[in-house]
Amino acid sequence: MKLAVIEGDGIGREVIPVAVKVLDAFGLEFEKVPLELGYTQWERTGTAISSDDLEIIKGCDAVLFGAVTTVPDPNCKSVLLTIRKELDLYANVRPVKPLPCIIGVTGRNDFDFIIVRENTEGLYSGIEEIGSDISWTKRVVTRRSSERIAEYACKLAKKRKNKLTIVHKSNVLKSDKLFLDVCRQTASANSVEYEDMLVDSMAYNLMMHPERYDIVVTTNLFGDILSDMCAALVGSLGLVPSANIGDKYAFFEPVHGSAPDIAGKGIANPLAAILSVKMLLEWMGEPRSQVIDEAITHVLQKKIITPDLGGTASTIEVGNAVAEYV
Amino acid sequence: MKLAVIEGDGIGREVIPVAVKVLDAFGLEFEKVPLELGYTQWERTGTAISSDDLEIIKGCDAVLFGAVTTVPDPNCKSVLLTIRKELDLYANVRPVKPLPCIIGVTGRNDFDFIIVRENTEGLYSGIEEIGSDISWTKRVVTRRSSERIAEYACKLAKKRKNKLTIVHKSNVLKSDKLFLDVCRQTASANSVEYEDMLVDSMAYNLMMHPERYDIVVTTNLFGDILSDMCAALVGSLGLVPSANIGDKYAFFEPVHGSAPDIAGKGIANPLAAILSVKMLLEWMGEPRSQVIDEAITHVLQKKIITPDLGGTASTIEVGNAVAEYV
Ligand SMILES: CC(C)[C@H](C(=O)O)[C@@H](O)C(=O)O
Ligand SMILES: CC(C)[C@H](C(=O)O)[C@@H](O)C(=O)O
Repeated sequence: MKLAVIEGDGIGREVIPVAVKVLDAFGLEFEKVPLELGYTQWERTGTAISSDDLEIIKGCDAVLFGAVTTVPDPNCKSVLLTIRKELDLYANVRPVKPLPCIIGVTGRNDFDFIIVRENTEGLYSGIEEIGSDISWTKRVVTRRSSERIAEYACKLAKKRKNKLTIVHKSNVLKSDKLFLDVCRQTASANSVEYEDMLVDSMAYNLMMHPERYDIVVTTNLFGDILSDMCAALVGSLGLVPSANIGDKYAFFEPVHGSAPDIAGKGIANPLAAILSVKMLLEWMGEPRSQVIDEAITHVLQKKIITPDLGGTASTIEVGNAVAEYV
Repeated sequence: MKLAVIEGDGIGREVIPVAVKVLDAFGLEFEKVPLELGYTQWERTGTAISSDDLEIIKGCDAVLFGAVTTVPDPNCKSVLLTIRKELDLYANVRPVKPLPCIIGVTGRNDFDFIIVRENTEGLYSGIEEIGSDISWTKRVVTRRSSERIAEYACKLAKKRKNKLTIVHKSNVLKSDKLFLDVCRQTASANSVEYEDMLVDSMAYNLMMHPERYDIVVTTNLFGDILSDMCAALVGSLGLVPSANIGDKYAFFEPVHGSAPDIAGKGIANPLAAILSVKMLLEWMGEPRSQVIDEAITHVLQKKIITPDLGGTASTIEVGNAVAEYV
């Protein structure tokens, strides 16, 4: 098992080393391949991710990723989007689940759902034209991509409550009818119970009734917006992990970004990165992945928490406590 | 002053008569022009809005609108989108403000901001192609539309805290750079303090720190999603009004839809529609518009509230209580 480790920029450089320490505590056989990508790299070399980098990544089985800062040059390729595309990581999986002792903005902890975001097309098509008076981007929905994300979501649903919510905006975007139809057919074919919801209503309902959902499947940018919003349900962007899954590769990253405002202070919350390691272990089929949940429960109960959660612990202190428990 | 009154479908038929009663209580000179549009109309005539209807609406100064149910025929024009387009209602204005005695999902009431949504383009361009294997919609951003929505937002900001938050996704949608640049320039030119925020971060921050915002300006679909989400901050979709403003016409509607699930039961919350009447009065420059706030405070304190707020009053009882107070 070869794992590319990309810290990236900002707090990525703080949370990833800590997450790696937790991973190491499992004593598994990993060949780790560290890679320097992102803003700092772009400042040095003029490119945030090179084709050599990509080849190295493609020689690995999986990637553990921190965060990168967007470079100001619009012609420079985005690291994240390039990797998602080149590795064909079509499913962006974002679990939304309360953590013990942590209270989110709504004060409730009776929810447990997963946002399954189509990760290759929609508004991320890259088909666009930029002009000084008019600019446009093409939002693309294909049957093939809709099918495979729907299949993925159904597979997850079958392991859980067998309930799928399809989120779209087909009352305005006629093109979303394709996504909706394919998801409905796939759910039927897999005997998964389903409903559909307009994205605006869904944003409202996720805040009002988060306990109603199990698997939520949606297009790329809707998934982006809804999953950040749902971090507020959990309590902090510092607590939500994600997996980008393809047929050949998988890529794990916290949902949060590089957070330049707190970078370098050693106070970034490493739990999202640590939970991303848990998703990596699950993907590998490692039965002990649950130990991470226990370890996190332990540090939260002992109030070994970073300032975003009202504590005073440093990134490293939280990481050490989790790693030790493991 | 000629006012088109469109109840539409579902609970639109229940909340609009009540809102009109409140409007009538002001004793202003109005010529009211009732119009039958929407699903029921489509069932009868095969069209949800005809060109004759449009001519009648264009002969009015303003519109009070309930909600319409989307018709299943994809070739049938959307009532709402047709009117917004034909009347060139370019600014969709959605105030997000707590009401007395009502607690939203986050339990806080220290926020007061307005979402100003560009209402003519973006993903609502109508430029799309629907295929069985691939479908697309063009998301269009023009300098002209960005300029006028930015001007509108700045004008509002100057009457308030002079703070503008520009919401975009220019790290992925290069076309959003145009929107962002124009908004920044317009804010500078008008000496309005501004910041910008990615739409995913904004969804998170609106839930975590709603007190930080004053005027939020964004593109069409982002505004749609964020404003529904923010109804959860206020406490119910039954409480948030909106105005669609153009240079010649204005159009007032609750943010909620036709809600077929509760239609016909007489329990729909009329406050969003009544607050839409308040926005109409403000738009007319009627100084007594504030009386509606007082009246709503009165009914909320007396707990004359519909089931969505935990009460037992009917739509008509709430409406009568507000109208009487006025
Ligand atoms: C950084 C950005 C390109 C990315 C996205 O929009 O997908 C991020 O917001 C995410 O959710 O992973
Ligand atoms: C009904 C629909 C076309 C509309 C929109 O998407 O604009 C609605 O959601 C709104 O926000 O007014």
